[in-house]
Amino acid sequence: MSAFTWPARVYWEDTDGGAIVYHADYLRYLERARTEWLRARGHSQRALARDPGILFTVVSLNIDYRAAARLDDTLWISCQPEAEGMASMRFIQRIHRDAGAGAPARLLVEASVRVACIDARTRRPKRLPDFLTEESQGGDVS
Amino acid sequence: MSAFTWPARVYWEDTDGGAIVYHADYLRYLERARTEWLRARGHSQRALARDPGILFTVVSLNIDYRAAARLDDTLWISCQPEAEGMASMRFIQRIHRDAGAGAPARLLVEASVRVACIDARTRRPKRLPDFLTEESQGGDVS
Amino acid sequence: MSAFTWPARVYWEDTDGGAIVYHADYLRYLERARTEWLRARGHSQRALARDPGILFTVVSLNIDYRAAARLDDTLWISCQPEAEGMASMRFIQRIHRDAGAGAPARLLVEASVRVACIDARTRRPKRLPDFLTEESQGGDVS
Amino acid sequence: MSAFTWPARVYWEDTDGGAIVYHADYLRYLERARTEWLRARGHSQRALARDPGILFTVVSLNIDYRAAARLDDTLWISCQPEAEGMASMRFIQRIHRDAGAGAPARLLVEASVRVACIDARTRRPKRLPDFLTEESQGGDVS
Repeated sequence: MSAFTWPARVYWEDTDGGAIVYHADYLRYLERARTEWLRARGHSQRALARDPGILFTVVSLNIDYRAAARLDDTLWISCQPEAEGMASMRFIQRIHRDAGAGAPARLLVEASVRVACIDARTRRPKRLPDFLTEESQGGDVS
Repeated sequence: MSAFTWPARVYWEDTDGGAIVYHADYLRYLERARTEWLRARGHSQRALARDPGILFTVVSLNIDYRAAARLDDTLWISCQPEAEGMASMRFIQRIHRDAGAGAPARLLVEASVRVACIDARTRRPKRLPDFLTEESQGGDVS
Repeated sequence: MSAFTWPARVYWEDTDGGAIVYHADYLRYLERARTEWLRARGHSQRALARDPGILFTVVSLNIDYRAAARLDDTLWISCQPEAEGMASMRFIQRIHRDAGAGAPARLLVEASVRVACIDARTRRPKRLPDFLTEESQGGDVS
Repeated sequence: MSAFTWPARVYWEDTDGGAIVYHADYLRYLERARTEWLRARGHSQRALARDPGILFTVVSLNIDYRAAARLDDTLWISCQPEAEGMASMRFIQRIHRDAGAGAPARLLVEASVRVACIDARTRRPKRLPDFLTEESQGGDVS
């Protein structure tokens, strides 16, 4: 598929007492993939906070946990943007576990994440930069 | 209201570079309140894992972030269970910021969390213990 | 003893795949106790960051892990300040597991944490406020 | 140098309200590098927990924070093992910030971490596997 994907390894820090990844920590993986999706387009959030002075903030999130990740697993996190008004975007994201050479990856997590663009100083909603509105309204994603 | 509530203080560990609570960390507050709701009914998860040998696992979660919590805020996390079949429960949860004496608390987060009961050894779905099915099918919650 | 102590409960978020508290997460408990030690003296870090414009930052830390904490444990974290120059303080801290009514608490962790006072804007070292230098040079701590 | 090194990127999840990496989170980077050092020798901790049935646990740690990492920084974490008896090892570890092409990396963190080998079932001290004692008593580390 054309969705952007980013790998992550599961470390001790990510696991909980059930010997699986703690449910809140999948949100970290999802954000890493969104950050890298942005970086792959040439933009770092630290630079965007200075110029044009914007931050991205999660405003809502739906997540389904289908199977658990375990220590040492290699995960692949995908990131597919969708249009969502002038000041926010929606990302459809999935996390698969790498099953090794040739084997089909297993779907672990599906999520839909709405992210708003805000002014870094006032924290009020702000229009998305052009490179993002063009991105999410179609075109080549990866 | 009759919903169970539990307090949390915001520490440095909970904040991110935007000087607000990191979005994934609200899931930790939500789980603390579910854990304490259970404890208020006389049950610890460590004991339940041994006898009758059950664990609870989050299977899906919807969360809306309405306003941000900041360092040193006192939060109140509510926890209202609802019936959801024989092997899972849904919790409607809200996080409010304490505004001090007399002032109305501000709603920060709303969430709906579906939690399944699983066998601690096999990790397969298991029927909820009676004290939980009775709980979520009405009756006095707090 | 006269040291300040603060309680913490162990939740799922704190545990790792070994079913014990993840080693880095004890540092969170230690910081919560230092924050509450300060608050017990009438000072919140958010207020101090505005006036007189200071932050505290950990500059070094030694920690010994003697025994592990587990899910649902109640911990007591102590905090004993010591003089350490004009712009930094050292805190001797211990974490005990509450063993229930009458039983002696078990020592889990011992740590020595050096914290520097810095200017919130420039991030350069700054003289400790008077209420802290007086505190750490003797007198009643709790 | 001959020390093993492993990269890490700083994400929002790692930062705190001071817009720098939260002090406890450097311990996560240190552990990732130890895990990858082990993996580079052909061993995953999940496999070792099954056969020969061992876990590694941090028993003490000294850390000096020299400079702060920020969002989007690329870090390099080194890992140099030293002999430390039959059932534990010491790792000398450093974290540098990548300064880009040609520029010298900046030292951010220095740490000394003592790790014990324990029986995965009984949690009692256990002799290190041969491949680790040989490793830490000299020879080619990377």
